[in-house]
Amino acid sequence: MSDETPPVRRGRRPAGEDTRRLISEAARGEFADKGYEGTSLRAVARVAGVDPALVHHYFDGKADLFAQSVVLTRVNPAVMVDRVLQGPLDTLGERLVRTFLTVWDDADNQERLVALVRAVHTNDDVAALMREFVAREITGRVTNRTQVADAPLRGALAAAQLLGLATTRYVVRMPAIVEAGHDDLAAWLGPVLQRYLVDP
Amino acid sequence: MSDETPPVRRGRRPAGEDTRRLISEAARGEFADKGYEGTSLRAVARVAGVDPALVHHYFDGKADLFAQSVVLTRVNPAVMVDRVLQGPLDTLGERLVRTFLTVWDDADNQERLVALVRAVHTNDDVAALMREFVAREITGRVTNRTQVADAPLRGALAAAQLLGLATTRYVVRMPAIVEAGHDDLAAWLGPVLQRYLVDP
Repeated sequence: MSDETPPVRRGRRPAGEDTRRLISEAARGEFADKGYEGTSLRAVARVAGVDPALVHHYFDGKADLFAQSVVLTRVNPAVMVDRVLQGPLDTLGERLVRTFLTVWDDADNQERLVALVRAVHTNDDVAALMREFVAREITGRVTNRTQVADAPLRGALAAAQLLGLATTRYVVRMPAIVEAGHDDLAAWLGPVLQRYLVDP
Repeated sequence: MSDETPPVRRGRRPAGEDTRRLISEAARGEFADKGYEGTSLRAVARVAGVDPALVHHYFDGKADLFAQSVVLTRVNPAVMVDRVLQGPLDTLGERLVRTFLTVWDDADNQERLVALVRAVHTNDDVAALMREFVAREITGRVTNRTQVADAPLRGALAAAQLLGLATTRYVVRMPAIVEAGHDDLAAWLGPVLQRYLVDP
């Protein structure tokens, strides 16, 4: 036990950050209990004890709430995918690989993403959450842009390749993949993702 | 506690199976403690309390001992890879995908392989073991046959794609990948593995 008196808080209490944190904590509980489909922004607001309008004030919809609260990287994967999709279609695969590597190579993101990949492999609820999130927010966005047939299979194949890249580079750490630069990996993997997502 | 008397063993004791099991148990301990590189067949024999000649009698070298004792499928991956490599080089990728799927779709193999993939993601020793095993017994065999430059990176890229396939089909169970037949998956993934492992 410490007998120091607690420091007196000076100035304005950062109410916004506290509210945002309350919503995030409620969201983590709801997503874990009810899955991605079963979670509503209204229910999250109720659990957090805040007005639903505040959830919409701090988060840009359900995908953003999931990304910010569960995936917990400083990057919203749905926004990242949208940015990749804005460039020309014939270099989509390469841009996707480079963006993926940039996000994962960031030390702070990497720690959280490795924890997420581990959880996906060991917890069926997290696997279900990830499955729904990838299908709706990632595959959905990409295939809306590319307008290919077999969209769900193509998206899942791209997810399989990127998940395998993440596992071999950041979890199992196979030396040849760890040592490869972004240029080499983009040259090898770019055409493969292009084939899965764009080629007829 | 039960007061039943233990059943009397009739006939010849299956000494061979007992010895084989003793060696497998010793091997699991040694591989877990010392890694793939650090494990010797002589040390396994010593721990099992058997003559080293018996290890060679029951197992066809270190790769076979690892496959039979740790991976625990009824299929030795090194032998499987050798069989795939015997066919023509220009259809190697497709044969590899079909063989991989046949081994994994077997319910008994699948249970053990899913346990292995989970362990690879959560236990650093198992990850190290898998890394060494893939590099030496899988990538090594394939690139000896294909004689390409950049062999370690190419092998690791193939491992990344196959690991991603295993995760999405058997662990995360993404519906589009689960529902896809061997022909569809061979058509999509065969050319990708061909590119990684064979194409100049």
